[in-house]
This record gives sequence, C-alpha cells and structure tokens, in this order.
Amino acid sequence: VQLPEAQGATAEERLASLGLRIPPAAAAVGAYEPWVIAQGILYMSGQLPWANGKVRYTGRIGGVCSPEDGYLACQLSALNAIAQIKSALGSLERVKRIIRVEGVLNVEPGFIDYPPVLNGASHLVSAVFREAGRHTRMVYASQEMPFDCACLIIFWTEISG
Amino acid sequence: VQLPEAQGATAEERLASLGLRIPPAAAAVGAYEPWVIAQGILYMSGQLPWANGKVRYTGRIGGVCSPEDGYLACQLSALNAIAQIKSALGSLERVKRIIRVEGVLNVEPGFIDYPPVLNGASHLVSAVFREAGRHTRMVYASQEMPFDCACLIIFWTEISG
Amino acid sequence: VQLPEAQGATAEERLASLGLRIPPAAAAVGAYEPWVIAQGILYMSGQLPWANGKVRYTGRIGGVCSPEDGYLACQLSALNAIAQIKSALGSLERVKRIIRVEGVLNVEPGFIDYPPVLNGASHLVSAVFREAGRHTRMVYASQEMPFDCACLIIFWTEISG
Repeated sequence: VQLPEAQGATAEERLASLGLRIPPAAAAVGAYEPWVIAQGILYMSGQLPWANGKVRYTGRIGGVCSPEDGYLACQLSALNAIAQIKSALGSLERVKRIIRVEGVLNVEPGFIDYPPVLNGASHLVSAVFREAGRHTRMVYASQEMPFDCACLIIFWTEISG
Repeated sequence: VQLPEAQGATAEERLASLGLRIPPAAAAVGAYEPWVIAQGILYMSGQLPWANGKVRYTGRIGGVCSPEDGYLACQLSALNAIAQIKSALGSLERVKRIIRVEGVLNVEPGFIDYPPVLNGASHLVSAVFREAGRHTRMVYASQEMPFDCACLIIFWTEISG
Repeated sequence: VQLPEAQGATAEERLASLGLRIPPAAAAVGAYEPWVIAQGILYMSGQLPWANGKVRYTGRIGGVCSPEDGYLACQLSALNAIAQIKSALGSLERVKRIIRVEGVLNVEPGFIDYPPVLNGASHLVSAVFREAGRHTRMVYASQEMPFDCACLIIFWTEISG
C-alpha cells in the first residue's frame, strides 16, 4: 500500500490533494485530555481509527484485520492525530516538526511484520508535513485493545512560534 | 469507583483531605534512577502499587485482580508517583503541569476495558493538582509483569520556576 | 552478568576500555528517521541487537534466549543507540544527560524477571557516560517482535551546547 504524491503549498492543501479532510477532534475516552502543550511540545493521547464516531478498523492485524487494512487503520488514526493538532494549534502551519510517532498494533499471534503496517501513519505524516514530518517511531504490539480497535497512534509535535 | 471531592489550598492539603499521605519515595529496582530532571521536565521511572515495601495489588486485572482493585492499584501507583515528585522537587507546588500519565496494566486475556481502570490514576492526579493535573494519557497492556504487580504508572511533569 | 570498570577521560575512551567500538549507525526499517533533535532533546527510534547487518540475539528471553543472552542483547542494542548519538551529534561529549532508557523485551510466557536483563543497557550507559548516564527507565514486554529480535532499546538524550 502506498499514498499518491501530495500536492499543495500548505499541509491542509496537501491533505486535501490526497482526498482527505480533517475530521472533528475526538474526545478522550477516560478522565484525561486529548492534548497538552508544555515546553514547546504538543503532547497527545492515543488516537484510534475512528470515523463518524465509530471504530472503522477492528480486530487483530494479521488475523481478521488484513495487513492492508492495518495500514489503512494507522493512516486513519494518524488523520485523527492531525485533527488533534488542528484543534490544539488552530493551524497545521504551526507544526515545526513531528518528532515521534508512537503506534500500538493489535496483532494476531505469529504476525510480526509491524513496520509496513505502521508505515500507514508514517507515509501520511511525511506526505502532509514534508520536511517537518520526518519523525522517529516507536511501535508496541498487543493482542487485545480497548474497543477491539486495530491500532492506536500518538504524535509528539514540536511547535513553532 | 470514584474519588470524593478534594479540599484544600495546596496539593498536599488536598491529598490529606482524601485521607492519603505521601509515602517514602521508592528506590529503583534495577541499575537506574527513580527520576531525572531535564529541560524543564521531571522524567520518572515506573511506579508500582507498593505500600510499606510490599506490592499490595498483584495479578491480572479482570482475572484474580478485580477491575475495582485495578482502579485502586492505579491510584496507589499514582500516589507513589506523587512521592517521587515530592522527593525530586521538595514541594508539590512546583508542579506546573502533569503532562502525561503512562500506565501499564497487567490484564487477563479477554479483559479490554482499560480506561476506567487507569482512571484510578487520572482521578487522583486531577483531584490533587486540579488545573495543573489535566494530563494526556497512554496505556499499555501486558499479561505478565515484574513482581506480578497489577500495574505500573509513570508521570511526565512540567516544573515551574 | 556485569560490566568491568570502564577507564578513560572521554565516553569513547571508556567504551574502548570495555573492548567495544561504535558500530555504523543502523538505518531505519520503515518510513521514518533513526533520530530527530527538538527542544534540546535527541529523540531516537528503536535500536535492535544488530551486528554486521544481522540480528545477533533472537527469540524469547527466558525461552530459547537465556537471560544472560538477553542482558547481552540489551547491551548490544544500547551500543547501537550510542552509535545513533555519535551519528546525530558527532561526539559523545555533547551528551548532557541520558534521560530515559526505553526497552522492549521479547519474553517467554512465565518469565517476568525483566530488570536484570534490561540492566545490560543500563550498565553500559552508566559505564560510558558516568554521571551524565544516570537515567530513568521504562520496560515493556512482548511475546513476539519484528525480526524475532530479543529486544529493542531507545535512549532519550539531553544535548549540551
């Protein structure tokens, strides 16, 4: 799976060129905040592959959820993370750098090929933020997740200005 | 499970109003430090549900450890995290913001309702630090943990002054 | 398992005194960067127990991989993390503090004695960086990992100058 080339002068234009729109930022699912800004960094809570208030991708990747759907789940969770940035900063142009992408994958026992799946988040970040989207990455695997969602994504974002 | 309303002008007074006292800060269980301060942030190692030198809550949440005990385990680990803040900063009044709460839960296969359990830590943080306690959160699940403890909690804390 | 005392005036000399050399920094295994610098911190992606382009330690710790080999796997991954620092900063003398060591261990069910294994990374950090190497730690366990590697290590590093 691969994203087409994104076009546009701003991050939002590049997102639109991919046929994607920023969804409403999701509320937290517990007694915490979706994001916090401290010391020039935007911290974020986990973003699930929600769309229209429902988890779109469920189940274990490599099992009932194919690796291709896992890739799309990571892409959708990353889109929800972008929605949190927009909600926190008002504009994606205030992103100085996506520092770190954390992913938790819900995986079938025996499935260990995590990197191409998490590329679903990484490719979107790189397409939308270009140089500012060059990030480090950390992946965790789990064999069960809340709401049976296929993945969870968090961005660590350096803010400009 | 829910905490009563905390009363008091300082974080320590609010903690006392809940009937809680700050325990001695626990030593590390390996070749590392309980906390490090860098760039205005207090970093912390994992805090277990210790009391008086013993792990009070053991076993898998959703199995031999009920979700209610899991909530209390997260609360106790968060109390131990508060003890590290006190040890590092001298006073809880130097907390500018609890940025991020990380929790690892020891869970029974099939138990996926993590958010209400981790609220045991979040409710305490919010009651004690009020606005400064509005935090992001990251949860991991494991099916075995060192000392068979029910959970582990870490705070990321922004320091004032 | 324990490291001998390291000798030397610089971090690289102390590493050499242990019979270790900094290997080439490993490339990322997905669409991300090995490291990013932001706000005075060097962020890093996961470092595996590679040597000469191959994973040297595979399998579950406490199973086909002994705890002693797990210790050496953490040491080797930490050496690869030191290689990323050298690649990013040019000199290990620019390390102000190793803030946090994150480890993911590939573990056999029933094996929970993680701290001595992760000490393989911590002992090397302390020997090489001395006071600047006094770090916090976070450990995660998994029962499967990409490339079947025995562990993964990440450093969070505060930069001087």
